[in-house]
Amino acid sequence: MNANKIPDIIIGRLPIYLRALQRMAEKGVQTTSSQELGELVGISAAQIRKDISQFGEFGKQGTGYRISYLIDKLREILKIDRIWDVAVVGAGDVGHALARYQGFVDRGFRVVMVFDNDQATVGQKIGEYTIKDTSSMIEEIQKAGIRVAMLTVPATAAQEVTNMLVKAGVKAILNYAPITLNVPEGVYVQHTDPVTHLQRMTYYL
Amino acid sequence: MNANKIPDIIIGRLPIYLRALQRMAEKGVQTTSSQELGELVGISAAQIRKDISQFGEFGKQGTGYRISYLIDKLREILKIDRIWDVAVVGAGDVGHALARYQGFVDRGFRVVMVFDNDQATVGQKIGEYTIKDTSSMIEEIQKAGIRVAMLTVPATAAQEVTNMLVKAGVKAILNYAPITLNVPEGVYVQHTDPVTHLQRMTYYL
Repeated sequence: MNANKIPDIIIGRLPIYLRALQRMAEKGVQTTSSQELGELVGISAAQIRKDISQFGEFGKQGTGYRISYLIDKLREILKIDRIWDVAVVGAGDVGHALARYQGFVDRGFRVVMVFDNDQATVGQKIGEYTIKDTSSMIEEIQKAGIRVAMLTVPATAAQEVTNMLVKAGVKAILNYAPITLNVPEGVYVQHTDPVTHLQRMTYYL
Repeated sequence: MNANKIPDIIIGRLPIYLRALQRMAEKGVQTTSSQELGELVGISAAQIRKDISQFGEFGKQGTGYRISYLIDKLREILKIDRIWDVAVVGAGDVGHALARYQGFVDRGFRVVMVFDNDQATVGQKIGEYTIKDTSSMIEEIQKAGIRVAMLTVPATAAQEVTNMLVKAGVKAILNYAPITLNVPEGVYVQHTDPVTHLQRMTYYL
């Protein structure tokens, strides 16, 4: 155990804080408190103070957090004070939605390539992207130095495509396929699935 | 504070355990251990034992968990030992993907209606669904007794549509719009956003 290692559960909350802070900044708000932020994100003020204090002293008792400063710090911590190029693999409904998604802007990511293995789809356009053939994926991703991918292929193809992504040097995969992926140490996977979100709510109904 | 209240963070992990258990069951596996389950979901065995023990004694030292029994118990706890009818609001790319998503089957949910306010879209088909006009949404949802909705409208419309859903009696909303929704007490919102998942991974790169 490394005493300096921040628990992943805390890392997982930082993007939620950041999103709320960025929305406040857009509205012209300049400072906030852990109470106010907590009400926006549904997390207790004490938890927010504890989480943020893991990384240093970013707020002042009585005056709270300066929003622009805290945004900068969180972007630095999450390494999104740069732009990560992202490959979308799978050009179905979800792949289309991701390629057209406006929510990446100013949040650290931009889609740069879309792949599919369906020859009827390859060569077609999604907005500004021309869908590329998955058979050229390893080479294209290596050449472009892409480290981040979003996987929207069917469950039956997901592991095979993941192996290709890992071979190409991808280190972070957002998985939309309803399957648990096996990846080597040093490669990170996040799974997103509407059903787990829904199930978390029905508990309370 | 209510001593019997299970922390929401634990509730949030139960669907993850359930998904992994259901995949094991599909493969014909009959028993598992907290170690094996932990490796599948990336959560420590100790945490899993602690989480599950909140709800009773479901495993035996040495022999582990009987998968079918634990699945039944988790479905009961999460109230998905029934089928919840779901309305999709917004028939864009994400709405299409959700209406066609095969992953709801046997997991407690079924999409029964799709709404949009674009008159060019209303009346068109997505698979078996005919897209209905949002202007009839409150009445239709009330009549059908729907309590669960997935919201895929643009951010600018999301709060207004949410107010309509609340008025119609919806208690659980899965929000795909990049905006924090205000809802009254007793209505639950989960937000899903590709960027927060990606940001959680770039921390480690």
